[in-house]
Amino acid sequence: MRVKKISHVAIASEDPDQAKLLYEDILGLNFTGSEAIEREGITTYFYEVGESNIEVLEALSKESPVGKFLIKRGAGIHHIALEVEDLDGYVVKLREAGITIMSEEPLPGAHGMRIIFIHPKSTGGVLIELSEKME
Amino acid sequence: MRVKKISHVAIASEDPDQAKLLYEDILGLNFTGSEAIEREGITTYFYEVGESNIEVLEALSKESPVGKFLIKRGAGIHHIALEVEDLDGYVVKLREAGITIMSEEPLPGAHGMRIIFIHPKSTGGVLIELSEKME
Repeated sequence: MRVKKISHVAIASEDPDQAKLLYEDILGLNFTGSEAIEREGITTYFYEVGESNIEVLEALSKESPVGKFLIKRGAGIHHIALEVEDLDGYVVKLREAGITIMSEEPLPGAHGMRIIFIHPKSTGGVLIELSEKME
Repeated sequence: MRVKKISHVAIASEDPDQAKLLYEDILGLNFTGSEAIEREGITTYFYEVGESNIEVLEALSKESPVGKFLIKRGAGIHHIALEVEDLDGYVVKLREAGITIMSEEPLPGAHGMRIIFIHPKSTGGVLIELSEKME
């Protein structure tokens, strides 16, 4: 059971085209594609940074979690995702420590990962995703 | 001129001891030490994650930038730092693109880096630090 790396830093965006200009054209990151995740009501745009990614999130509706975040907090960093080994072991350990996980079970995420989210109230205000590659 | 990696994700914290419990004891990250940066009015606590760090920021006063952030937004992710090659080249390129840098010149940061901050109004709400190792 260990954290391997920062999988991505996710950014809630009002303007994915402006984000593309910044991350690809100006900073020179490699844009590796986009993926719609219907369950979460978002389209994600991936930019490689070393072993990690910056993941720009576009809300598909105002009622989606990211849509609500944009209304409440405005555009900005939304969450940090850590890739782990033994996600199920972490689920047990987090629950034992009294930390709130936002789903009963790991859910399917982008790029063929299983993911959980740890509630910001348990982390000092940070929405943390833990992810593991599906076998 | 290129971005090498995510240097760190910085988290403004009301409770560095609670953060240590989460990042070190529960998630199992390696705590590598702390550093006071008087100019910014913060103490930083570093936790290794792959090639990157999670950097927990403690405000030394309410008047410091992180102290003001905590009052205005509450605890949570404060900024993302990207390590680059040719920081001076990026300064020129960012200014040409009309992007606001928050200092005239690169400033000394933690761990012997030269750093600049890009203003969130130029990035879609994200405070972005660019850093380069001093020669």
